[in-house]
Amino acid sequence: MTARPGTAQQARLLRLLRDGGPTTRARLGEQTDLSRSRLAVEVERLLGSGLVVADRQANGPGGRRPWTLRLAPELRFLAVDIGATSIDVAVTNAELEVLGHLTRPMDVRQGPVVVFEQVLAMAAELRQGDGFAGAGVGVPGPVRFPEGVPVLPPIMPGWDGFPVREALSQELGCPVMVDNDVNLMAMGEQHAGVARFVADFLCIKIGTGIGCGIVVGGQVHRGTTGSAGDIGHIQVQPDGRPCACGNSGCLEAHVGGGALARDAQDAARSGRSPELAARWETAGHLTAADLTAAAAVGDVASLELVRAGGHRVGQIVAVLISYFNPGMVVIAGGVAGLGHDLLAGVRTQVYRQSPSLATGNLPIVLGELGAAAGVIGAARLISDHLFSPA
Amino acid sequence: MTARPGTAQQARLLRLLRDGGPTTRARLGEQTDLSRSRLAVEVERLLGSGLVVADRQANGPGGRRPWTLRLAPELRFLAVDIGATSIDVAVTNAELEVLGHLTRPMDVRQGPVVVFEQVLAMAAELRQGDGFAGAGVGVPGPVRFPEGVPVLPPIMPGWDGFPVREALSQELGCPVMVDNDVNLMAMGEQHAGVARFVADFLCIKIGTGIGCGIVVGGQVHRGTTGSAGDIGHIQVQPDGRPCACGNSGCLEAHVGGGALARDAQDAARSGRSPELAARWETAGHLTAADLTAAAAVGDVASLELVRAGGHRVGQIVAVLISYFNPGMVVIAGGVAGLGHDLLAGVRTQVYRQSPSLATGNLPIVLGELGAAAGVIGAARLISDHLFSPA
Repeated sequence: MTARPGTAQQARLLRLLRDGGPTTRARLGEQTDLSRSRLAVEVERLLGSGLVVADRQANGPGGRRPWTLRLAPELRFLAVDIGATSIDVAVTNAELEVLGHLTRPMDVRQGPVVVFEQVLAMAAELRQGDGFAGAGVGVPGPVRFPEGVPVLPPIMPGWDGFPVREALSQELGCPVMVDNDVNLMAMGEQHAGVARFVADFLCIKIGTGIGCGIVVGGQVHRGTTGSAGDIGHIQVQPDGRPCACGNSGCLEAHVGGGALARDAQDAARSGRSPELAARWETAGHLTAADLTAAAAVGDVASLELVRAGGHRVGQIVAVLISYFNPGMVVIAGGVAGLGHDLLAGVRTQVYRQSPSLATGNLPIVLGELGAAAGVIGAARLISDHLFSPA
Repeated sequence: MTARPGTAQQARLLRLLRDGGPTTRARLGEQTDLSRSRLAVEVERLLGSGLVVADRQANGPGGRRPWTLRLAPELRFLAVDIGATSIDVAVTNAELEVLGHLTRPMDVRQGPVVVFEQVLAMAAELRQGDGFAGAGVGVPGPVRFPEGVPVLPPIMPGWDGFPVREALSQELGCPVMVDNDVNLMAMGEQHAGVARFVADFLCIKIGTGIGCGIVVGGQVHRGTTGSAGDIGHIQVQPDGRPCACGNSGCLEAHVGGGALARDAQDAARSGRSPELAARWETAGHLTAADLTAAAAVGDVASLELVRAGGHRVGQIVAVLISYFNPGMVVIAGGVAGLGHDLLAGVRTQVYRQSPSLATGNLPIVLGELGAAAGVIGAARLISDHLFSPA
């Protein structure tokens, strides 16, 4: 639908307009160090491509009314975040502002055909105007990034090798980029959340699965086979609980959403938690969210479970910090709704176990964007692709 | 002494000549995609700077005798690798070929003044001609890289905050760059060893200390405070052995050179190893090297100790692999002289504990360069600095 920029300078200008919003030529000149004539040529091409438009500013300083440049206001990105048990679909403008956002429950194990029917239906509900300039998609498993194909994803077995990028691109008629959901969450928090201006950070997602987004020098590190950050299947307990991946004692099998739900049921059944028992009686089942709620009202057994989960995560995070020496650690994802009690558990373990140099000034914080992190990351992914030289 | 290149193109040409050796203008043109006229200008500047010289080739193809370009043959780099218990000093030419190499025992805890007297004496012994175009220096602890200053180094307490870069630069009268010794080992194996052509890899050094060099996209990742890869002080056993860093149960306290020497003594004293007992009687002491030698001749107790050390290292390496998804893991350093038995221990643990996707085709190999890795990495460090735009 839209052409990609022809030069690195044009790509740079598009990203500046995306990240900084409408601005003047003079300001772009300052930000890029392009000569006035070079800038004029590149801006002319961008105006010609339709990616950028020029408005007369309402009230310029000192009575002057300079032209303002901005990304074409009708450009739309589709942002899709497929989780283990739900789908988020959003539409953004080219400045990655969310214009509409839907969340629906969905079991990813139903496979790509059923899931994408749902995604396309949600996209149609949100669609405005001419369709999408591009789409970013996150899936809860490792992705061979250049091809946009899931590879051996433990919690979505029917997806192994499915050509997500190609299939969706044909359905939508626009370019599509696919990445691991945790990487998108990291990109979201980097673009619009707590990790803005941090070059090297980790984003730990604790949901049904557990993963880690790694940002090095502002770029997501995906690893040699696309499985970097796949920390959910690190063994934290020899001969521990059986895991969906086939091994036992994995971090995910002890602190993932399913594991915490089972812990909650045990606490209810054994009488250790009257709060959880009452919830179980009312709803007929318990989830990790019930554990959150019970901990939030001060239920002692629930608080202990949440803290213990935090300690387990902290054990692994401490190793990663010693190894990677990040500038920030972000804790995010559904179970991170467990919030400050979980965070306290992680922090206690990290500070106990890690050398003081790496942890001395290290912020370990909750993500700011909640469920929006994934879709903003997805929009960022496709915009990075479209706003790079063809 | 020598000027740094004026443009990114000149820097690129210098690195091509460093890594590929003498070559023709035609070949440089192919490798860089520079226009003939642009190439001529850049080469002329390099010839003018004295960094590059032109020779008439002895026997060109088809009777033609093209001019060959190469780095000035009299350029010398000083390469210094300060370990916990020894110093390596080498001199290389600009193509990073080692022309002379000395190793001397030295306790790093004697502090920077005593150590640098020794370094300067060794450099004077090796010095040929005009002095050095630059020097690269490795130290066994975290370094604030831009300033070249060690920061809170656990095994070299007297060095905290000492301005290594500035002090040595004044003494030598040339530019100096300083880095962690493990990073230099990784750069050495990348430049001339087993990790050539691998973009993302880990280099685990097992010596007196234990550390990890991290290469991402061909570049060393140093972390926010210069302590990335500082895995020696990760806790591998709650309430384990006391460590030099003040904590207990650190990886280094269980598998570092000193820990293995103590294990060897215990095995000799308890009668479990007749081989080690005999060595102890002869020498009056035991080191990690004795454990190597005893394992190599099939001493069962020594083999068990080496494998157990390998398992401990493998536990941590498995986590790092899940996290980072590297294309290769290199095991190097003094204790890695323990060789294939240690490697077998690491591999067993990693394959047992790590997901198949990340480890499926992952080579876990011994370093190729031995003690030369550090000095080649040091020469590479300073040449990268000098062969970049001023």
